[in-house]
Amino acid sequence: MSQTKGMQSLVFENKVYVVSAASIVGKLEGEGPLGKYFDKVEEDPMLGQDSWEEAESRMQLSAARMALDKAGLQPEDIRMIFTGDLLAQSIASSFGIVELERPVYGLFGACSTMGEALSLGAMAVNAGYGEHVMAVTSSHFGSAEKEFRFPLAYGNQRPPSATWTVTGSGACVLGLEKSGARIAAVTSGRIVDYGLKDSQNMGACMAPAACDTICRHLMDFERQPSEYDRIITGDLGKVGKVILLELLRQQGYDIEKQHLDCGMLIYDENNQDTGAGGSGCACSATVFAAHILPKLEQGEWRRVLFVPTGALMSKVSFYEGQTVPGIAQAVLLESTAKEA
Amino acid sequence: MSQTKGMQSLVFENKVYVVSAASIVGKLEGEGPLGKYFDKVEEDPMLGQDSWEEAESRMQLSAARMALDKAGLQPEDIRMIFTGDLLAQSIASSFGIVELERPVYGLFGACSTMGEALSLGAMAVNAGYGEHVMAVTSSHFGSAEKEFRFPLAYGNQRPPSATWTVTGSGACVLGLEKSGARIAAVTSGRIVDYGLKDSQNMGACMAPAACDTICRHLMDFERQPSEYDRIITGDLGKVGKVILLELLRQQGYDIEKQHLDCGMLIYDENNQDTGAGGSGCACSATVFAAHILPKLEQGEWRRVLFVPTGALMSKVSFYEGQTVPGIAQAVLLESTAKEA
Repeated sequence: MSQTKGMQSLVFENKVYVVSAASIVGKLEGEGPLGKYFDKVEEDPMLGQDSWEEAESRMQLSAARMALDKAGLQPEDIRMIFTGDLLAQSIASSFGIVELERPVYGLFGACSTMGEALSLGAMAVNAGYGEHVMAVTSSHFGSAEKEFRFPLAYGNQRPPSATWTVTGSGACVLGLEKSGARIAAVTSGRIVDYGLKDSQNMGACMAPAACDTICRHLMDFERQPSEYDRIITGDLGKVGKVILLELLRQQGYDIEKQHLDCGMLIYDENNQDTGAGGSGCACSATVFAAHILPKLEQGEWRRVLFVPTGALMSKVSFYEGQTVPGIAQAVLLESTAKEA
Repeated sequence: MSQTKGMQSLVFENKVYVVSAASIVGKLEGEGPLGKYFDKVEEDPMLGQDSWEEAESRMQLSAARMALDKAGLQPEDIRMIFTGDLLAQSIASSFGIVELERPVYGLFGACSTMGEALSLGAMAVNAGYGEHVMAVTSSHFGSAEKEFRFPLAYGNQRPPSATWTVTGSGACVLGLEKSGARIAAVTSGRIVDYGLKDSQNMGACMAPAACDTICRHLMDFERQPSEYDRIITGDLGKVGKVILLELLRQQGYDIEKQHLDCGMLIYDENNQDTGAGGSGCACSATVFAAHILPKLEQGEWRRVLFVPTGALMSKVSFYEGQTVPGIAQAVLLESTAKEA
């Protein structure tokens, strides 16, 4: 069992690489601090389709095709695709990547889905189950508001703790050939339920899960936060961030110097009126492709713990008065830049 | 790359075993032909809970605990759980297995989810990612009607091609120690869309995907149907079965002698008024635990291709006039009975 490490982690030695990654986002994300780093900015939120759901599907296909192009691969080179989104029955994924005609494993981890997809994809590549696999996720402000909240035309007011669903899609090709960044390990996340019920404060709901997975990772590897260049959560936002830092301090870990949150990176808090920050499966996926991976490839960051976070809820569970449990899937990335 | 076989299959040699499996079903399923083989029959569709969704969650937890008991394991012995259901954002799974406090990878493959969970679980065990993992899925007639169709009190009429969602949950423990049945291989399924739009005839929507995966499996292994004791689809029902057999004949394969369908096994077609047969994530999962696995363990069947099928749709995709694509995930099971 040499692949396992500690209680919840797996180690892949030097075998799994992020061969390429691509991102497509909407207009608002394109106007944000990372705007110029995304591969494509779509001005039309409908992408010329008849519905937001179809638009989201198109974005998945577009991101996947761009990632394939960057890797110099054809769809038939991909052994399997791990994919998911936020919509009921994951329809953005099903209708998005059907055109690639590749084997598919559908996932649901709410906004943590890119962490889940990278984890399962890396597990597959490391085991020799395919020379190349893909991880693809998406979300769309319009489809998510319709799925979880209010009709857009209603113009509901949002509390400052609410997050803003990122319109976009991120896709990664994982494989065996050496690239600028490898997936060195994963730490599988547990569902953590602190009993919170406020779907307009998902950062608070997810922070305990992020704490659980980050703590477990550090314990499994017997490392301190200072041994990481960055520890980057998915979409806790500014409310969830404060809670995470406090929860981790209670466990004896101070990650304030290392911590970033994709949800806080993607929008300009002061000028974009996006509440506590970005969220959605596309948030961590597009920030990973546009910002995190390049820093690793350039060697600016050597070791990054990437921890997409998800709030496990639906309209029905909310209406039935259920809590909002969280989950966080951690992926350990290491730069190979300047290596032999 | 010795684990891969052909275009879409993976081979696990003799390393992955089904250590235990358990099933829980509702009253109707308990009155069906397989009634006495299920581990538990719940007379109360609410299981004493306040909603169908909570009842479904309870069934997942119950099935998982029974499978653990049969294997003589505690939750902490399970390295990771692969789980899914039919509900929006997979809430039956999230709220069902949170109590086990184990790492979770949430899946969505519609009614094919047990095929997906067994596939990913077997991939994990074979690679040494855990000594034991679990695969757990569920569905519930009440929660599925609410999610996809009409309020139960409305008493809508169903066409004969419609299937009946199975109330229940199935759970399997996979591991390295030898048991009566092993998972010898998997064939990953592609999404197949023939352009059908009738959500009341999901068998027809899924049959092309079942054909695609079964054909691919037979080609990858260069085998004929006669080399299998049974080829068992998930929930095509009697309409989908006819289509599958015809589609396979067009590809040069006749599986009529080997073919069974879990949806047609679970209810008594003549006396239970369940339309074309059973469906739902619990259909193939409970039939697997109660019927298929025991036949393998007893050596009555030596080689079975188990092919859960899923119809990838949601209320929203249906209302927006989208098609209903299908997917099928194949798991090759072999008996170890009477071996050395």
